[in-house]
Amino acid sequence: MTTPEIEHLIQLLSRLPGLGPRSARRAVLHLMKKRESLMLPLADTMAKAAEAIRVCSDCGNLDGEDPCSICRDPERDRTAICVVEEVGDLWALERSGAFKGRYHVLGGTLSAIDGRGPEQLNLEALLRHVQEGEVKEVILALSATVDGQTTAFYVADRLGDQQVTVSRLGHGVPVGGELDYLDDGTLTAALKSRRPT
Amino acid sequence: MTTPEIEHLIQLLSRLPGLGPRSARRAVLHLMKKRESLMLPLADTMAKAAEAIRVCSDCGNLDGEDPCSICRDPERDRTAICVVEEVGDLWALERSGAFKGRYHVLGGTLSAIDGRGPEQLNLEALLRHVQEGEVKEVILALSATVDGQTTAFYVADRLGDQQVTVSRLGHGVPVGGELDYLDDGTLTAALKSRRPT
Repeated sequence: MTTPEIEHLIQLLSRLPGLGPRSARRAVLHLMKKRESLMLPLADTMAKAAEAIRVCSDCGNLDGEDPCSICRDPERDRTAICVVEEVGDLWALERSGAFKGRYHVLGGTLSAIDGRGPEQLNLEALLRHVQEGEVKEVILALSATVDGQTTAFYVADRLGDQQVTVSRLGHGVPVGGELDYLDDGTLTAALKSRRPT
Repeated sequence: MTTPEIEHLIQLLSRLPGLGPRSARRAVLHLMKKRESLMLPLADTMAKAAEAIRVCSDCGNLDGEDPCSICRDPERDRTAICVVEEVGDLWALERSGAFKGRYHVLGGTLSAIDGRGPEQLNLEALLRHVQEGEVKEVILALSATVDGQTTAFYVADRLGDQQVTVSRLGHGVPVGGELDYLDDGTLTAALKSRRPT
């Protein structure tokens, strides 16, 4: 019915998170209707971005250069490292603008169920950075899931004999969150971390 | 924070239906993690598909050749034309396999609100086909919306002085649909079109 190129394009697009076979088909139809203004620029930009991306050998961030722009930035605080699971978490923290130190991307979490062990984490580079002595604090910004917290314990343990403060993100009520939609664990954590106004 | 290519890629991807800025960012992260297996092939396939697409000058379908594979197929019934709004509707009907004639893509509907008049519909080619005398039936497979039905009336009216049967899709309960979720209009239509078992 359609050409092999179009079928192949639908099949590839349906592998993106958030798109299934149906929405990929809709997306391809939309692309074909906007051939000049969207489809050709998107193909071109994607090819260029794919060529330009480097994995930062210092922190694991994805950037146009290696070391990445954050690692090269002389304004960033070199005494604090924020450990995240994925580059998406790094981007989310950068959007918040709340952290001015450097990052370290683990590339995932430990997982007993999925069989991911410590050797699959990008951990040696972090230990090397800390051993160099410049770092004073390691902030573990890992997911509040079983796997995330297991990984946080493991990383904290590996850093145990180093002269650094290891901290974690605070738990509590999300800003803008409504109490009656929150789970018990979050409410308990929010009560424990209550502060005088 | 990210490179200009990546920001541009996020911005272009967020223009696809079903993707917003957040899901486009997630999609780009996924692409960058699967650079070899997904990102490069996707960019390449998209560029090739964009080059290969032709709008069929007979029916308005999108295909690798002009006339499209459906219009060229000698097996298809040349006495029936199914009129649809968009290429996506044509694909949906083709997937059903229920229609063996040819199609005509109008490229939209009339719309008083959005100011789309008859001159914006691909109608002349349809009238020309019908005037050639081979066509016996025109099936109006347009949306059951106000705009779709207005367009159906208009097309039927323009075909009024031709020697063709003009029909529409039947209304009723969707197969697999539950009665108590259906609107009154559909239930009324389903009752009117009831058949002896």
